[in-house]
Amino acid sequence: MDIITSKDNELFKSLKKLKAKKYRELDKLFLAEGRKFLEFEEIPKVIIFKEGVSEESIKLSEKFQCKKIILSEKLFKELSSQENSQGVIICYNSKEQKLDYLDKNIVVLNRVADPGNLGTIIRVADAAGFKDIILTKGSVDCYNEKTVRSSMGSILSINIYYLEEEDTIHLLKEKGYKIIATALEKDSIPYTKMRLEEKNAFVFGNEGDGISQNILLKSDEKVIIPIYGSAESLNVAMATGIILYDVRNRLDNK
Amino acid sequence: MDIITSKDNELFKSLKKLKAKKYRELDKLFLAEGRKFLEFEEIPKVIIFKEGVSEESIKLSEKFQCKKIILSEKLFKELSSQENSQGVIICYNSKEQKLDYLDKNIVVLNRVADPGNLGTIIRVADAAGFKDIILTKGSVDCYNEKTVRSSMGSILSINIYYLEEEDTIHLLKEKGYKIIATALEKDSIPYTKMRLEEKNAFVFGNEGDGISQNILLKSDEKVIIPIYGSAESLNVAMATGIILYDVRNRLDNK
Repeated sequence: MDIITSKDNELFKSLKKLKAKKYRELDKLFLAEGRKFLEFEEIPKVIIFKEGVSEESIKLSEKFQCKKIILSEKLFKELSSQENSQGVIICYNSKEQKLDYLDKNIVVLNRVADPGNLGTIIRVADAAGFKDIILTKGSVDCYNEKTVRSSMGSILSINIYYLEEEDTIHLLKEKGYKIIATALEKDSIPYTKMRLEEKNAFVFGNEGDGISQNILLKSDEKVIIPIYGSAESLNVAMATGIILYDVRNRLDNK
Repeated sequence: MDIITSKDNELFKSLKKLKAKKYRELDKLFLAEGRKFLEFEEIPKVIIFKEGVSEESIKLSEKFQCKKIILSEKLFKELSSQENSQGVIICYNSKEQKLDYLDKNIVVLNRVADPGNLGTIIRVADAAGFKDIILTKGSVDCYNEKTVRSSMGSILSINIYYLEEEDTIHLLKEKGYKIIATALEKDSIPYTKMRLEEKNAFVFGNEGDGISQNILLKSDEKVIIPIYGSAESLNVAMATGIILYDVRNRLDNK
Protein backbone atom coordinates (compact mmCIF):
# COMPACT_ATOMS: atom_id res chain seq x y z
CA MET A 1 0.00 0.00 0.00
CA ASP A 2 1.33 3.45 -0.89
CA ILE A 3 2.19 5.71 2.00
CA ILE A 4 1.65 9.35 1.18
CA THR A 5 3.44 11.94 3.26
CA SER A 6 3.63 14.93 0.92
CA LYS A 7 0.78 17.39 0.67
CA ASP A 8 1.78 17.92 -2.95
CA ASN A 9 0.82 14.39 -3.85
CA GLU A 10 -1.74 14.55 -6.67
CA LEU A 11 -4.06 11.90 -5.28
CA PHE A 12 -4.06 13.54 -1.87
CA LYS A 13 -4.79 16.91 -3.44
CA SER A 14 -7.68 15.52 -5.46
CA LEU A 15 -9.13 13.80 -2.37
CA LYS A 16 -8.86 16.94 -0.29
CA LYS A 17 -10.77 18.89 -2.91
CA LEU A 18 -13.76 16.62 -2.26
CA LYS A 19 -14.37 18.47 0.97
CA ALA A 20 -15.90 21.16 -1.24
CA LYS A 21 -19.30 20.59 -2.85
CA LYS A 22 -18.09 22.01 -6.16
CA TYR A 23 -15.47 19.29 -6.61
CA ARG A 24 -17.73 16.54 -5.33
CA GLU A 25 -20.13 17.43 -8.12
CA LEU A 26 -17.42 17.84 -10.71
CA ASP A 27 -15.63 14.59 -9.94
CA LYS A 28 -18.78 12.63 -8.98
CA LEU A 29 -17.04 11.40 -5.86
CA PHE A 30 -17.58 11.83 -2.14
CA LEU A 31 -15.91 10.96 1.17
CA ALA A 32 -17.32 8.87 3.99
CA GLU A 33 -15.49 8.58 7.28
CA GLY A 34 -15.53 5.68 9.72
CA ARG A 35 -14.66 2.00 9.84
CA LYS A 36 -18.36 1.21 9.67
CA PHE A 37 -18.36 1.95 5.95
CA LEU A 38 -16.02 -0.99 5.34
CA GLU A 39 -18.83 -3.27 6.47
CA PHE A 40 -21.06 -2.33 3.54
CA GLU A 41 -21.08 -3.99 0.14
CA GLU A 42 -20.69 -0.78 -1.84
CA ILE A 43 -17.36 -0.85 -3.63
CA PRO A 44 -15.13 2.12 -2.80
CA LYS A 45 -13.07 4.05 -5.29
CA VAL A 46 -10.24 4.61 -2.82
CA ILE A 47 -9.79 3.52 0.79
CA ILE A 48 -7.71 5.92 2.85
CA PHE A 49 -6.09 4.81 6.09
CA LYS A 50 -4.31 6.84 8.70
CA GLU A 51 -0.76 5.77 9.44
CA GLY A 52 -0.88 3.28 12.30
CA VAL A 53 -4.55 2.36 11.76
CA SER A 54 -5.77 -0.83 13.44
CA GLU A 55 -5.08 -4.20 11.82
CA GLU A 56 -8.79 -4.86 12.12
CA SER A 57 -9.59 -2.01 9.75
CA ILE A 58 -7.03 -3.20 7.21
CA LYS A 59 -8.52 -6.69 7.43
CA LEU A 60 -12.04 -5.39 6.88
CA SER A 61 -10.87 -3.71 3.69
CA GLU A 62 -9.44 -6.88 2.16
CA LYS A 63 -12.68 -7.83 0.45
CA PHE A 64 -12.39 -4.75 -1.77
CA GLN A 65 -10.07 -4.79 -4.80
CA CYS A 66 -9.93 -0.99 -5.02
CA LYS A 67 -7.04 1.40 -4.53
CA LYS A 68 -5.87 1.70 -0.93
CA ILE A 69 -3.49 4.27 0.49
CA ILE A 70 -2.02 5.25 3.82
CA LEU A 71 -1.74 8.90 4.77
CA SER A 72 0.67 10.31 7.31
CA GLU A 73 -1.09 11.48 10.46
CA LYS A 74 -0.74 15.09 9.43
CA LEU A 75 -2.26 14.59 5.96
CA PHE A 76 -5.02 12.37 7.29
CA LYS A 77 -6.01 15.09 9.71
CA GLU A 78 -6.49 17.47 6.78
CA LEU A 79 -8.94 15.06 5.20
CA SER A 80 -10.76 13.93 8.32
CA SER A 81 -13.82 15.67 9.69
CA GLN A 82 -13.92 13.89 13.02
CA GLU A 83 -12.09 14.66 16.20
CA ASN A 84 -11.76 11.06 17.30
CA SER A 85 -11.23 9.52 13.92
CA GLN A 86 -11.02 5.77 13.50
CA GLY A 87 -8.43 6.39 10.80
CA VAL A 88 -10.57 5.24 7.88
CA ILE A 89 -11.98 7.43 5.12
CA ILE A 90 -13.58 5.98 2.03
CA CYS A 91 -13.95 7.67 -1.31
CA TYR A 92 -17.02 6.50 -3.25
CA ASN A 93 -18.45 7.24 -6.64
CA SER A 94 -21.60 9.32 -6.32
CA LYS A 95 -24.64 7.46 -7.60
CA GLU A 96 -25.98 8.50 -10.96
CA GLN A 97 -29.42 9.95 -10.62
CA LYS A 98 -31.69 8.15 -13.00
CA LEU A 99 -35.34 8.85 -12.51
CA ASP A 100 -36.50 5.73 -14.33
CA TYR A 101 -38.14 4.13 -11.42
CA LEU A 102 -39.64 5.61 -8.30
CA ASP A 103 -41.18 3.68 -5.45
CA LYS A 104 -44.88 4.04 -4.76
CA ASN A 105 -44.19 5.95 -1.58
CA ILE A 106 -41.47 8.55 -1.68
CA VAL A 107 -40.07 11.40 0.38
CA VAL A 108 -39.69 14.96 -0.93
CA LEU A 109 -37.53 17.46 0.94
CA ASN A 110 -38.17 21.08 0.09
CA ARG A 111 -34.98 23.05 0.82
CA VAL A 112 -33.93 21.16 3.93
CA ALA A 113 -30.84 23.12 4.90
CA ASP A 114 -29.13 21.43 7.82
CA PRO A 115 -26.71 18.63 6.81
CA GLY A 116 -27.26 16.76 10.07
CA ASN A 117 -31.02 16.85 9.58
CA LEU A 118 -30.67 15.52 6.05
CA GLY A 119 -28.46 12.64 7.21
CA THR A 120 -30.91 11.77 9.97
CA ILE A 121 -33.80 11.86 7.50
CA ILE A 122 -31.93 9.58 5.07
CA ARG A 123 -31.30 7.14 7.92
CA VAL A 124 -34.88 7.05 9.20
CA ALA A 125 -36.34 6.91 5.68
CA ASP A 126 -34.14 3.90 4.96
CA ALA A 127 -35.07 2.30 8.29
CA ALA A 128 -38.78 2.76 7.54
CA GLY A 129 -38.34 1.06 4.18
CA PHE A 130 -38.45 4.06 1.86
CA LYS A 131 -36.19 3.97 -1.19
CA ASP A 132 -36.36 7.39 -2.83
CA ILE A 133 -35.84 10.94 -1.67
CA ILE A 134 -36.30 13.90 -3.99
CA LEU A 135 -34.58 17.06 -2.82
CA THR A 136 -35.67 20.30 -4.41
CA LYS A 137 -32.79 22.46 -5.61
CA GLY A 138 -31.53 24.71 -2.86
CA SER A 139 -31.47 21.84 -0.37
CA VAL A 140 -28.18 20.96 1.29
CA ASP A 141 -25.79 18.58 -0.57
CA CYS A 142 -26.37 14.97 0.46
CA TYR A 143 -22.65 14.23 0.10
CA ASN A 144 -21.74 16.79 2.73
CA GLU A 145 -19.48 15.10 5.31
CA LYS A 146 -21.93 15.69 8.12
CA THR A 147 -24.84 14.31 6.10
CA VAL A 148 -22.91 11.21 5.11
CA ARG A 149 -21.90 10.66 8.73
CA SER A 150 -25.34 11.13 10.26
CA SER A 151 -26.93 8.91 7.60
CA MET A 152 -24.96 6.07 9.23
CA GLY A 153 -24.42 4.35 5.91
CA SER A 154 -27.95 4.75 4.58
CA ILE A 155 -26.60 7.26 2.05
CA LEU A 156 -25.36 4.20 0.15
CA SER A 157 -28.82 2.60 -0.01
CA ILE A 158 -31.24 5.40 -0.64
CA ASN A 159 -31.77 6.92 -4.10
CA ILE A 160 -31.44 10.66 -3.88
CA TYR A 161 -32.53 12.99 -6.66
CA TYR A 162 -32.10 16.74 -6.96
CA LEU A 163 -34.82 18.46 -8.99
CA GLU A 164 -36.08 21.98 -9.46
CA GLU A 165 -39.21 22.63 -7.44
CA GLU A 166 -41.34 23.05 -10.57
CA ASP A 167 -40.00 19.84 -12.08
CA THR A 168 -40.69 17.99 -8.85
CA ILE A 169 -44.33 19.07 -8.83
CA HIS A 170 -44.67 18.28 -12.52
CA LEU A 171 -43.16 14.82 -12.08
CA LEU A 172 -45.33 13.97 -9.10
CA LYS A 173 -48.52 15.10 -10.83
CA GLU A 174 -47.61 13.31 -14.05
CA LYS A 175 -46.84 10.06 -12.30
CA GLY A 176 -50.01 10.22 -10.24
CA TYR A 177 -48.60 10.79 -6.78
CA LYS A 178 -50.79 12.20 -4.07
CA ILE A 179 -48.79 15.13 -2.65
CA ILE A 180 -49.01 15.16 1.13
CA ALA A 181 -47.40 18.26 2.61
CA THR A 182 -46.47 18.57 6.26
CA ALA A 183 -47.36 22.13 7.08
CA LEU A 184 -48.97 24.19 9.78
CA GLU A 185 -51.87 25.55 7.73
CA LYS A 186 -55.45 26.32 8.55
CA ASP A 187 -56.70 23.33 6.62
CA SER A 188 -54.02 20.92 7.85
CA ILE A 189 -55.29 17.70 9.40
CA PRO A 190 -53.53 15.50 11.97
CA TYR A 191 -51.19 13.05 10.21
CA THR A 192 -53.04 10.15 11.78
CA LYS A 193 -56.05 11.12 9.65
CA MET A 194 -54.26 11.36 6.33
CA ARG A 195 -55.51 9.11 3.57
CA LEU A 196 -52.97 7.15 1.59
CA GLU A 197 -53.53 6.55 -2.09
CA GLU A 198 -51.81 4.09 -4.42
CA LYS A 199 -48.83 6.44 -4.77
CA ASN A 200 -47.87 9.07 -2.20
CA ALA A 201 -45.20 11.74 -1.92
CA PHE A 202 -44.57 13.01 1.61
CA VAL A 203 -43.17 16.52 1.55
CA PHE A 204 -41.18 18.10 4.37
CA GLY A 205 -39.96 21.67 4.36
CA ASN A 206 -37.16 23.96 5.37
CA GLU A 207 -36.26 24.19 9.07
CA GLY A 208 -37.24 27.83 9.33
CA ASP A 209 -39.62 28.54 6.47
CA GLY A 210 -41.39 25.23 6.02
CA ILE A 211 -42.73 24.26 2.59
CA SER A 212 -42.86 26.82 -0.23
CA GLN A 213 -46.19 28.41 -1.15
CA ASN A 214 -45.89 26.91 -4.60
CA ILE A 215 -45.80 23.34 -3.32
CA LEU A 216 -48.46 24.04 -0.70
CA LEU A 217 -50.83 25.25 -3.42
CA LYS A 218 -50.25 22.12 -5.50
CA SER A 219 -50.46 19.65 -2.63
CA ASP A 220 -53.44 17.33 -2.24
CA GLU A 221 -53.45 17.19 1.53
CA LYS A 222 -51.75 19.09 4.32
CA VAL A 223 -50.95 17.33 7.55
CA ILE A 224 -49.52 18.29 10.92
CA ILE A 225 -48.17 16.41 13.89
CA PRO A 226 -50.34 17.59 16.77
CA ILE A 227 -48.44 19.11 19.69
CA TYR A 228 -49.89 18.15 23.05
CA GLY A 229 -47.53 19.81 25.52
CA SER A 230 -45.83 23.20 25.63
CA ALA A 231 -43.31 22.50 22.86
CA GLU A 232 -43.91 24.71 19.87
CA SER A 233 -42.80 22.37 17.14
CA LEU A 234 -40.66 19.38 16.28
CA ASN A 235 -37.37 19.23 14.45
CA VAL A 236 -37.91 18.35 10.76
CA ALA A 237 -35.96 15.09 11.04
CA MET A 238 -38.05 14.00 14.01
CA ALA A 239 -41.26 14.95 12.21
CA THR A 240 -40.15 12.95 9.19
CA GLY A 241 -39.40 9.89 11.31
CA ILE A 242 -42.74 9.99 13.10
CA ILE A 243 -44.72 10.34 9.89
CA LEU A 244 -42.74 7.84 7.80
CA TYR A 245 -43.06 5.14 10.46
CA ASP A 246 -46.76 5.81 10.72
CA VAL A 247 -47.02 5.42 6.94
CA ARG A 248 -44.96 2.22 7.01
CA ASN A 249 -47.18 0.72 9.71
CA ARG A 250 -50.27 1.50 7.68
CA LEU A 251 -48.83 0.02 4.50
CA ASP A 252 -47.98 -3.10 6.48
CA ASN A 253 -51.51 -3.39 7.79
CA LYS A 254 -53.12 -3.07 4.39
CA MET B 1 -29.10 47.98 34.30
CA ASP B 2 -25.57 47.23 35.56
CA ILE B 3 -22.92 46.94 32.92
CA ILE B 4 -20.21 44.49 33.90
CA THR B 5 -16.85 44.75 32.21
CA SER B 6 -14.48 43.15 34.72
CA LYS B 7 -13.96 39.44 34.83
CA ASP B 8 -13.38 39.78 38.55
CA ASN B 9 -16.97 40.81 39.12
CA GLU B 10 -18.47 38.40 41.64
CA LEU B 11 -21.79 37.92 39.82
CA PHE B 12 -20.02 37.25 36.54
CA LYS B 13 -17.75 34.75 38.22
CA SER B 14 -20.65 32.94 39.83
CA LEU B 15 -22.52 32.80 36.51
CA LYS B 16 -19.50 31.49 34.67
CA LYS B 17 -19.14 28.69 37.17
CA LEU B 18 -22.54 27.41 36.05
CA LYS B 19 -20.95 26.10 32.89
CA ALA B 20 -19.72 23.23 35.07
CA LYS B 21 -22.17 20.57 36.26
CA LYS B 22 -20.69 20.63 39.75
CA TYR B 23 -21.66 24.25 40.33
CA ARG B 24 -25.04 23.89 38.63
CA GLU B 25 -25.85 21.22 41.20
CA LEU B 26 -24.36 23.12 44.10
CA ASP B 27 -26.09 26.43 43.32
CA LYS B 28 -29.29 24.85 41.92
CA LEU B 29 -29.07 27.17 38.92
CA PHE B 30 -28.57 26.73 35.20
CA LEU B 31 -28.08 28.80 32.05
CA ALA B 32 -30.26 28.87 28.96
CA GLU B 33 -29.18 30.80 25.89
CA GLY B 34 -31.37 32.42 23.27
CA ARG B 35 -34.02 35.14 23.06
CA LYS B 36 -36.64 32.43 22.76
CA PHE B 37 -36.43 31.80 26.49
CA LEU B 38 -37.75 35.30 27.18
CA GLU B 39 -41.01 34.22 25.60
CA PHE B 40 -41.72 31.65 28.30
CA GLU B 41 -43.51 32.30 31.57
CA GLU B 42 -40.81 30.79 33.76
CA ILE B 43 -39.34 33.54 35.93
CA PRO B 44 -35.57 33.90 35.52
CA LYS B 45 -33.14 34.47 38.35
CA VAL B 46 -30.90 36.72 36.23
CA ILE B 47 -31.19 37.89 32.64
CA ILE B 48 -27.84 38.50 30.99
CA PHE B 49 -27.57 40.69 27.89
CA LYS B 50 -24.63 41.28 25.64
CA GLU B 51 -23.59 44.89 25.22
CA GLY B 52 -25.46 46.27 22.20
CA VAL B 53 -28.21 43.63 22.30
CA SER B 54 -31.35 44.39 20.28
CA GLU B 55 -34.02 46.66 21.76
CA GLU B 56 -36.50 43.90 21.01
CA SER B 57 -34.77 41.56 23.44
CA ILE B 58 -34.72 44.19 26.17
CA LYS B 59 -38.41 44.81 25.58
CA LEU B 60 -39.22 41.10 25.81
CA SER B 61 -37.54 41.00 29.21
CA GLU B 62 -39.62 43.81 30.69
CA LYS B 63 -42.31 41.48 31.97
CA PHE B 64 -39.82 39.95 34.40
CA GLN B 65 -38.97 41.74 37.66
CA CYS B 66 -35.72 39.83 38.11
CA LYS B 67 -32.12 41.04 38.11
CA LYS B 68 -30.86 42.08 34.69
CA ILE B 69 -27.29 42.81 33.69
CA ILE B 70 -25.32 43.73 30.61
CA LEU B 71 -21.97 42.10 29.94
CA SER B 72 -19.22 43.51 27.78
CA GLU B 73 -18.83 41.61 24.55
CA LYS B 74 -15.72 39.90 25.82
CA LEU B 75 -17.31 38.70 29.05
CA PHE B 76 -20.50 37.62 27.30
CA LYS B 77 -18.46 35.48 24.96
CA GLU B 78 -17.01 33.64 27.93
CA LEU B 79 -20.51 32.76 29.09
CA SER B 80 -22.06 32.01 25.72
CA SER B 81 -22.04 28.59 24.11
CA GLN B 82 -23.23 29.68 20.69
CA GLU B 83 -21.25 31.03 17.79
CA ASN B 84 -24.00 33.26 16.50
CA SER B 85 -25.40 34.31 19.82
CA GLN B 86 -28.52 36.46 20.04
CA GLY B 87 -26.95 38.14 23.05
CA VAL B 88 -29.36 36.77 25.65
CA ILE B 89 -28.56 34.23 28.35
CA ILE B 90 -30.95 33.46 31.14
CA CYS B 91 -30.10 32.05 34.52
CA TYR B 92 -32.92 29.96 36.03
CA ASN B 93 -33.41 28.14 39.28
CA SER B 94 -33.28 24.40 38.71
CA LYS B 95 -36.57 22.75 39.52
CA GLU B 96 -36.79 20.86 42.76
CA GLN B 97 -37.32 17.22 42.14
CA LYS B 98 -40.32 16.13 44.12
CA LEU B 99 -41.55 12.68 43.30
CA ASP B 100 -45.00 13.24 44.79
CA TYR B 101 -46.89 12.88 41.60
CA LEU B 102 -46.06 11.00 38.43
CA ASP B 103 -48.18 10.89 35.33
CA LYS B 104 -49.74 7.61 34.25
CA ASN B 105 -47.40 7.37 31.28
CA ILE B 106 -43.79 8.29 31.86
CA VAL B 107 -40.42 8.08 30.15
CA VAL B 108 -37.37 6.45 31.71
CA LEU B 109 -33.92 7.06 30.26
CA ASN B 110 -31.27 4.56 31.26
CA ARG B 111 -27.86 6.24 31.04
CA VAL B 112 -28.56 8.33 27.94
CA ALA B 113 -25.17 9.96 27.44
CA ASP B 114 -25.39 12.49 24.63
CA PRO B 115 -26.60 15.95 25.71
CA GLY B 116 -28.12 16.68 22.29
CA ASN B 117 -30.06 13.43 22.37
CA LEU B 118 -31.40 14.21 25.84
CA GLY B 119 -32.54 17.67 24.74
CA THR B 120 -34.26 16.24 21.68
CA ILE B 121 -35.97 13.59 23.82
CA ILE B 122 -37.18 16.24 26.30
CA ARG B 123 -38.60 18.25 23.38
CA VAL B 124 -40.41 15.35 21.71
CA ALA B 125 -41.67 13.96 25.02
CA ASP B 126 -43.14 17.37 25.79
CA ALA B 127 -44.62 17.63 22.28
CA ALA B 128 -46.26 14.22 22.65
CA GLY B 129 -47.83 15.28 25.92
CA PHE B 130 -45.61 13.45 28.40
CA LYS B 131 -44.86 15.22 31.67
CA ASP B 132 -42.25 13.16 33.47
CA ILE B 133 -38.84 11.78 32.62
CA ILE B 134 -36.83 9.69 35.06
CA LEU B 135 -33.14 9.53 34.28
CA THR B 136 -31.14 6.80 35.95
CA LYS B 137 -27.94 8.02 37.60
CA GLY B 138 -25.08 8.04 35.16
CA SER B 139 -27.19 9.77 32.51
CA VAL B 140 -26.04 13.13 31.19
CA ASP B 141 -27.00 16.29 33.13
CA CYS B 142 -30.23 17.78 31.82
CA TYR B 143 -28.95 21.29 32.56
CA ASN B 144 -26.03 20.87 30.20
CA GLU B 145 -25.99 23.85 27.79
CA LYS B 146 -26.46 21.62 24.77
CA THR B 147 -29.38 19.77 26.34
CA VAL B 148 -31.09 23.01 27.36
CA ARG B 149 -30.63 24.36 23.84
CA SER B 150 -31.87 21.30 21.97
CA SER B 151 -34.85 20.97 24.29
CA MET B 152 -36.04 24.27 22.73
CA GLY B 153 -37.58 25.39 25.98
CA SER B 154 -39.25 22.12 26.92
CA ILE B 155 -36.70 21.78 29.74
CA LEU B 156 -38.86 24.34 31.57
CA SER B 157 -42.02 22.26 31.22
CA ILE B 158 -41.00 18.67 31.76
CA ASN B 159 -40.39 17.22 35.22
CA ILE B 160 -37.01 15.51 35.29
CA TYR B 161 -35.93 13.18 38.07
CA TYR B 162 -32.58 11.54 38.65
CA LEU B 163 -32.78 8.22 40.47
CA GLU B 164 -30.51 5.26 41.02
CA GLU B 165 -31.37 2.39 38.69
CA GLU B 166 -32.47 0.19 41.59
CA ASP B 167 -34.66 2.92 43.05
CA THR B 168 -36.24 3.51 39.66
CA ILE B 169 -37.23 -0.13 39.29
CA HIS B 170 -38.45 -0.23 42.88
CA LEU B 171 -40.54 2.91 42.39
CA LEU B 172 -42.08 1.70 39.12
CA LYS B 173 -42.97 -1.69 40.56
CA GLU B 174 -44.36 -0.19 43.76
CA LYS B 175 -46.53 2.29 41.90
CA GLY B 176 -47.82 -0.34 39.51
CA TYR B 177 -46.21 0.77 36.26
CA LYS B 178 -45.84 -1.66 33.41
CA ILE B 179 -42.17 -1.46 32.43
CA ILE B 180 -41.84 -1.42 28.64
CA ALA B 181 -38.21 -1.61 27.55
CA THR B 182 -37.04 -0.75 24.05
CA ALA B 183 -34.41 -3.37 23.38
CA LEU B 184 -33.21 -5.65 20.64
CA GLU B 185 -33.80 -8.94 22.45
CA LYS B 186 -34.93 -12.34 21.26
CA ASP B 187 -38.32 -11.92 22.87
CA SER B 188 -38.82 -8.29 21.76
CA ILE B 189 -42.03 -7.55 19.89
CA PRO B 190 -42.68 -4.74 17.39
CA TYR B 191 -43.73 -1.57 19.23
CA THR B 192 -46.97 -1.52 17.30
CA LYS B 193 -47.96 -4.70 19.14
CA MET B 194 -47.20 -3.52 22.66
CA ARG B 195 -50.06 -3.55 25.12
CA LEU B 196 -50.61 -0.50 27.23
CA GLU B 197 -51.82 -0.88 30.79
CA GLU B 198 -53.26 1.71 33.14
CA LYS B 199 -49.76 2.99 33.97
CA ASN B 200 -46.76 2.57 31.70
CA ALA B 201 -43.08 3.43 31.88
CA PHE B 202 -41.27 3.50 28.52
CA VAL B 203 -37.58 2.81 28.96
CA PHE B 204 -34.89 3.86 26.48
CA GLY B 205 -31.23 2.98 26.86
CA ASN B 206 -27.71 4.21 26.31
CA GLU B 207 -26.65 5.07 22.75
CA GLY B 208 -24.06 2.32 22.61
CA ASP B 209 -25.01 -0.24 25.23
CA GLY B 210 -28.79 -0.02 25.29
CA ILE B 211 -30.69 -0.84 28.47
CA SER B 212 -28.92 -2.47 31.42
CA GLN B 213 -29.44 -6.19 32.05
CA ASN B 214 -30.90 -5.35 35.42
CA ILE B 215 -33.75 -3.30 33.95
CA LEU B 216 -34.25 -5.76 31.08
CA LEU B 217 -34.77 -8.57 33.60
CA LYS B 218 -37.33 -6.55 35.52
CA SER B 219 -39.21 -5.25 32.49
CA ASP B 220 -42.68 -6.51 31.64
CA GLU B 221 -42.41 -6.22 27.87
CA LYS B 222 -39.58 -5.63 25.40
CA VAL B 223 -40.29 -3.81 22.19
CA ILE B 224 -38.35 -2.89 19.07
CA ILE B 225 -38.90 -0.56 16.16
CA PRO B 226 -38.70 -2.85 13.10
CA ILE B 227 -36.09 -1.88 10.53
CA TYR B 228 -37.30 -2.36 6.95
CA GLY B 229 -34.37 -1.11 4.89
CA SER B 230 -30.62 -1.45 5.19
CA ALA B 231 -30.21 0.87 8.18
CA GLU B 232 -29.01 -0.98 11.22
CA SER B 233 -30.70 1.02 13.89
CA LEU B 234 -32.20 4.35 14.81
CA ASN B 235 -30.82 7.09 16.99
CA VAL B 236 -32.25 6.88 20.54
CA ALA B 237 -33.96 10.28 20.27
CA MET B 238 -35.64 9.28 17.02
CA ALA B 239 -36.72 5.93 18.50
CA THR B 240 -38.17 7.75 21.50
CA GLY B 241 -40.11 10.14 19.29
CA ILE B 242 -41.60 7.37 17.15
CA ILE B 243 -42.68 5.31 20.14
CA LEU B 244 -43.99 8.18 22.27
CA TYR B 245 -46.15 9.51 19.42
CA ASP B 246 -47.50 6.04 18.80
CA VAL B 247 -48.38 5.80 22.49
CA ARG B 248 -50.00 9.23 22.43
CA ASN B 249 -52.12 8.32 19.43
CA ARG B 250 -53.30 5.17 21.15
CA LEU B 251 -54.15 6.98 24.37
CA ASP B 252 -56.13 9.49 22.30
CA ASN B 253 -58.09 6.73 20.62
CA LYS B 254 -59.03 4.96 23.83
